[in-house]
Amino acid sequence: MRIEILCTGDEILTGKTINTNHSHMARRFGEVGLTMHWGTIVGDDRPSLVEAFKLAAKRADAVIVNGGLGPTIDDLSQEVAAEAAGVDLVLDENWLARMEDFYTRRGRVMPPNNRKQAMLPEGAEFINNPIGTACGFAIDIDGARFFFTPGVPREMRRMIDEQVIPRLLEMSGLKVVTRLKRFHSFGIGESRADQMLQGIEDLAPNGGVKLGFQAHYPQLETKLAAQAASEAELDALLAPVEAAVREKLGTFIISEDAQSLEGAVIDALVERGETLATAEMFTGGAIAARFVPKDGAEDPFLRGVVSRDLGQMCHAVGLDETVAAQGLTAETAMAIASALRDQSGAGHALVVLIELDDGADKIEFGGTINVGIADSGGVIARTARMLGGRDWVRLGATDLGIDCLRRRLQGLPVDERIDFEKR
Amino acid sequence: MRIEILCTGDEILTGKTINTNHSHMARRFGEVGLTMHWGTIVGDDRPSLVEAFKLAAKRADAVIVNGGLGPTIDDLSQEVAAEAAGVDLVLDENWLARMEDFYTRRGRVMPPNNRKQAMLPEGAEFINNPIGTACGFAIDIDGARFFFTPGVPREMRRMIDEQVIPRLLEMSGLKVVTRLKRFHSFGIGESRADQMLQGIEDLAPNGGVKLGFQAHYPQLETKLAAQAASEAELDALLAPVEAAVREKLGTFIISEDAQSLEGAVIDALVERGETLATAEMFTGGAIAARFVPKDGAEDPFLRGVVSRDLGQMCHAVGLDETVAAQGLTAETAMAIASALRDQSGAGHALVVLIELDDGADKIEFGGTINVGIADSGGVIARTARMLGGRDWVRLGATDLGIDCLRRRLQGLPVDERIDFEKR
Repeated sequence: MRIEILCTGDEILTGKTINTNHSHMARRFGEVGLTMHWGTIVGDDRPSLVEAFKLAAKRADAVIVNGGLGPTIDDLSQEVAAEAAGVDLVLDENWLARMEDFYTRRGRVMPPNNRKQAMLPEGAEFINNPIGTACGFAIDIDGARFFFTPGVPREMRRMIDEQVIPRLLEMSGLKVVTRLKRFHSFGIGESRADQMLQGIEDLAPNGGVKLGFQAHYPQLETKLAAQAASEAELDALLAPVEAAVREKLGTFIISEDAQSLEGAVIDALVERGETLATAEMFTGGAIAARFVPKDGAEDPFLRGVVSRDLGQMCHAVGLDETVAAQGLTAETAMAIASALRDQSGAGHALVVLIELDDGADKIEFGGTINVGIADSGGVIARTARMLGGRDWVRLGATDLGIDCLRRRLQGLPVDERIDFEKR
Repeated sequence: MRIEILCTGDEILTGKTINTNHSHMARRFGEVGLTMHWGTIVGDDRPSLVEAFKLAAKRADAVIVNGGLGPTIDDLSQEVAAEAAGVDLVLDENWLARMEDFYTRRGRVMPPNNRKQAMLPEGAEFINNPIGTACGFAIDIDGARFFFTPGVPREMRRMIDEQVIPRLLEMSGLKVVTRLKRFHSFGIGESRADQMLQGIEDLAPNGGVKLGFQAHYPQLETKLAAQAASEAELDALLAPVEAAVREKLGTFIISEDAQSLEGAVIDALVERGETLATAEMFTGGAIAARFVPKDGAEDPFLRGVVSRDLGQMCHAVGLDETVAAQGLTAETAMAIASALRDQSGAGHALVVLIELDDGADKIEFGGTINVGIADSGGVIARTARMLGGRDWVRLGATDLGIDCLRRRLQGLPVDERIDFEKR
């Protein structure tokens, strides 16, 4: 089945807004086994829309149109759809009532131009938008099925997942239940993960599981996209493959699905009623910033200290110059961790020291990272050297530090070699 | 003149890579007065490329093709261009020699398949790529001018600015020297800035200056895109408009061109040989993280403290419970700023306290921000209330704090009302 995405709007065409809607939709389609054929971007311009609808209808079986469903004069999607399908626009009374209710519940009166959003081409299939005033719809134009979706990303995402993908899968004759299982890991590069997981798709009885990766340096997302005839069959398909991923990636897995590395750490602390303090140098607050804004981090996160200067950092945690004179070593990281733990009263103290190379930033530029962790079980350290330029070192050190803490909390070794370190 | 952008590659089509190349090119075109007409995305697929070239040639005067110039088998742009133009591919000896030299200087031997990158359609105009092995070229197809550009963003960006835009401007008959002047402001929303700057384009003698905005909450970028026959004429055109922007946006301007807010603060500190310490709550290290990783921030940035808990924060800067008992007030912010300045030995101390609303995150969710600054001139405070949800409050408070420090360093009032605050 040939699928096209047609993104509309001057903001997208002129580059004012980056077209993340195309990439999100296309990626989701790929994850459920649907193949993209073409993408088009046109502005809020009637002749371009008419022409784009005509061309897409000729090439594709299904066309996802995004944007142009708003209340203003330059939102043309319904009108042009009706024209292209050769029908009139008619008022969808149900949607109008839903919109009016939507406003009433917020203590407001619906502006009259929102009524336009309830005008749909005659005979179109209504597609629900539970979180906005732009409903979607589907209609046949020149033999292709057109799906109209809102431009607001969160409304589009939900409609694509809940409404459009099931319809596309049905059209395509593909099995209709899908699931995306995600594993997040730290310390394994994409190509090595690819090697380590070679052949695991075959573990699913009768196939139906597709392995994919998405690198967000320094983390890697491993995705299992599955489709089957029923939820029970999905469970059966995925169980052996999930087990294999857990076994192969093992201690490198930091979390699954919507959970994050810092979320896993905070949850572990909250569960035990324990607390954390951090001290960091060139990561410059990035470690603290991963924890602090999270809902629920008020209780476990007690204190963070940031300094580029070791003397300042030692002073901030109540240590004297003799410690700073040791330089940026594992011993210093351990001493600061102990002092920070005592001073802050936190159950766990995480310290990430970085000694940057001298000279200009370039790809060979590196840093030596010393992580120190103090808790009721004692004080430990982890040393790693990373290359790749200033930003790369900073990003790598941030996750290395948080991951050491995760490992320590989970009783795993903190010194397993990672792919990003140079020995 | 009708301009189209055609982005090629499976990574873009399937959404694995977000299509930032389209948005960058389109934005740059708009900034020099060129108008976008259509955008297309196709994969590394010969029939799709042939069809896309044919359609674009029919619609447009100029087509910018991006991607497909690499050395591998799935890079098809040169081949399909030659086919569409009805000519053969011929070896560009100059470019081959340049590529070989490129490898030799890095102590490597050019892999044989890179030779493919020097094969250009017969009669094509060579377009230089000073930083990569994928050269560009231009050729007429069915009456439209096609420009082929590399998919690697930094190579594409340079080629668009230095090579493609001048050719497009010449084709369009537009004046050929262009300049983009940028102002960054904090505290003024896009619609108000638009009102405040109404009519300033008319200050340029004979026109030629176009005003535009790009919002990066909470900052706003105000852009003046100018075109003229010469650099001297550009200076003359821009001078009165730049002066008007500086006058109208006044103290809200934080920096110009490539300078950032935190860069302006660090430069001011370095220039005076002075130092900074910070203390923050819900911004969670985001304020420190803006300063610390910057090259040159080692000297001025002494120390940052992060805590969600006021008692912890007071303890960290050596204050007792009586201060914490005052709550999150302007007085508390001033007391912490003074204590932090004394304790760290920094010349300037910046404290940003936030009292978040209770309850679930939503658009009406807000926070009350108290900024305290201590320096040799005394201690001051600034209070503001912001709404818009947790993330919005955190982003707004981060810039509010840093901007108060900029204002203080520049001798400007720190309590000018900003558009994002609710009183």
